[in-house]
Amino acid sequence: MDYDFTTVINRRHTDSVKWNVKDSELPMSIADMDFKTAPEIVLAMREKLELGAFGYEEAGADYFNAVSHWYQLEHGADADPDWMIFATGVVPAISSIVRRVSHIGDNVLVQEPVYNIFYNSIENNGRHVLSSDLIYSNGKYEINWQDLEEKLANPLTTLMIFCNPHNPTGIVWKKNEVKRIASLCQENHVILLSDEIHGDLVRNNVKYTPAFSIAKPLRSNVISLVSPSKTFNVAALHAATVIIPDNNLRDIVNRGLNSDELAEPNLLAIPATIAAYTEGFNWLHELLAVIDNNFAYAEKKITKQLKDIKIVSGPATYLMWLDVSEISQNSQELADYIRRETGLIVSPGSIYRGNGKNFLRLNLASPISMVKDGINRLITGIKKYSKK
Amino acid sequence: MDYDFTTVINRRHTDSVKWNVKDSELPMSIADMDFKTAPEIVLAMREKLELGAFGYEEAGADYFNAVSHWYQLEHGADADPDWMIFATGVVPAISSIVRRVSHIGDNVLVQEPVYNIFYNSIENNGRHVLSSDLIYSNGKYEINWQDLEEKLANPLTTLMIFCNPHNPTGIVWKKNEVKRIASLCQENHVILLSDEIHGDLVRNNVKYTPAFSIAKPLRSNVISLVSPSKTFNVAALHAATVIIPDNNLRDIVNRGLNSDELAEPNLLAIPATIAAYTEGFNWLHELLAVIDNNFAYAEKKITKQLKDIKIVSGPATYLMWLDVSEISQNSQELADYIRRETGLIVSPGSIYRGNGKNFLRLNLASPISMVKDGINRLITGIKKYSKK
Repeated sequence: MDYDFTTVINRRHTDSVKWNVKDSELPMSIADMDFKTAPEIVLAMREKLELGAFGYEEAGADYFNAVSHWYQLEHGADADPDWMIFATGVVPAISSIVRRVSHIGDNVLVQEPVYNIFYNSIENNGRHVLSSDLIYSNGKYEINWQDLEEKLANPLTTLMIFCNPHNPTGIVWKKNEVKRIASLCQENHVILLSDEIHGDLVRNNVKYTPAFSIAKPLRSNVISLVSPSKTFNVAALHAATVIIPDNNLRDIVNRGLNSDELAEPNLLAIPATIAAYTEGFNWLHELLAVIDNNFAYAEKKITKQLKDIKIVSGPATYLMWLDVSEISQNSQELADYIRRETGLIVSPGSIYRGNGKNFLRLNLASPISMVKDGINRLITGIKKYSKK
Repeated sequence: MDYDFTTVINRRHTDSVKWNVKDSELPMSIADMDFKTAPEIVLAMREKLELGAFGYEEAGADYFNAVSHWYQLEHGADADPDWMIFATGVVPAISSIVRRVSHIGDNVLVQEPVYNIFYNSIENNGRHVLSSDLIYSNGKYEINWQDLEEKLANPLTTLMIFCNPHNPTGIVWKKNEVKRIASLCQENHVILLSDEIHGDLVRNNVKYTPAFSIAKPLRSNVISLVSPSKTFNVAALHAATVIIPDNNLRDIVNRGLNSDELAEPNLLAIPATIAAYTEGFNWLHELLAVIDNNFAYAEKKITKQLKDIKIVSGPATYLMWLDVSEISQNSQELADYIRRETGLIVSPGSIYRGNGKNFLRLNLASPISMVKDGINRLITGIKKYSKK
């Protein structure tokens, strides 16, 4: 290992949302990591500070070329720099696109259980959530194609938010699945908005399929959202890229991002993104090995000690998705209990809707010593809960 | 002088919007400065980079206390930290507030000529600009009170955007003027949104009156927007504070900022703002002396060499407002001519509407060597234009 993934950083009392908890508590909920980002990124940030004058900025060719370079080398996907727009974040871009390409009262299709903030972007803007729930059986999730097709065919459904790869289940959609969804959206005049923020965080040599990378007739109504945010633990960098192959759709979204004041980079966004996407390869691959190791540790302990709990995680994200239905169908109550009894904070699956009430989500992107502490607390909490 | 305001920083080819010009051109248009920000701020930024993990953040008591501290010491104004909300910028907050407190089709009152971006925030959101133009006579601007009162009384007028101090004229509104405007707004159920981004940049020991600081019955429909952005040359810091004394109005605006994804600080926003507002006093006061000196130099040269041009600037902002009506009533054409002939880029007053077509706006926040170069180019360009 060339990089340090073992030192515990003290993030308590640092303005961190995740770590704004009691000193005895251990947060494994909100999806940011407890590793320092790649030193190449910090170096680029430090160099930018030398400039001293921090007036208005705009992203130029070097920024968009860096994004393109990364998708080519890391994912074997061709992304034309001309397809790209800078945005201050994936979630801000989702909210803006919801406002720009759908109307008040429309349905926005999602696949529950799914990233809870999608619901805010949809409902805060007066649109309705329409879910084509993933089918869950034998510890596996699958798409209900017939249901999906019917719901996309509803004329009030004008936008689909696709979580690709999928949070919280860790599913990496296969290329033919991505194409089939794009095709169904196109047939039904639905814009396909693909949140690819976890696209770099896929283990076991599996590769995800960026929506922008599918062949030409199908990609004309596709929007991909990418960011170094999750990959490099820089959520507070506020940098994302919107990738839209179609010229007209891109103009529409661009107008919305500008009106919504989400199109200007802060002083670190450009140099840090360029550093991430041109010098971050080795750091990322070491990180993936560390997360893999954390998953292996957690799986072994949980399988041995908590027989009633099923691990249902695909190879994507650093988030473990635990089926706790044998011991509780009220994940909020269970999560509250574990926090109260052990100080461990996990995300109750109910916030992701769908069948999430039977699940807990556990963030494993921490040094192994913290993961061990967290898994021990989880085992203690669940054993105690089961004995109630 | 403890700080360096003379070294010319090379901002060409740095992602700067202002400096994205030909190598032979000199931009004195877009309102950011060509000085390095206070070293205390850069130090705080550098220290933040040490943390290394840059997950989700939220502003806490130390941030809001620092804002309060600054307004107390620098402006003698009491700002309760409980009145404050973090926002990613003054303009983003304006756009969000326009959407939240007024309806599509409403009138938003402004005082032309005024900061051109107000028009974007109003018109991009489907509202109408209603101007109570400032009265201009004998080289001075004044409020047309009767006209203002009539326009505020229009039931379709629901919001007033007040530029306090005023850009581009540099006027510092007197306390009784601020109170009278607040009072008229209150009588007519109009929210008063006061953009105070230039509030710290007032020369000649004049002090501006923050709208939040007026006495209790009048401040109940008042929103002040403040930021270290202009003051410390950190536009790309993306940090501003919304100050709203009234609880209900604050809740409404807060909801809007959150829905619009403008409420989360990036990784530098909190520490840099705290440093600015607790350690930036000396730097600011040296800056004001430098700008004062630049104004004195420019005034002397222009008065001597360009007899047909009148300088019409109040003590606020680093922007000089030049009445060129004797030589052109088409400031866009004049600005284009000057750029073509001399490479100097100034803002044509027409973009600020009102009587702006008779004016040019000149940014003087640069090292004296650049100011001298700029004034020489201005004199050359205008003399040549006059001889046409």
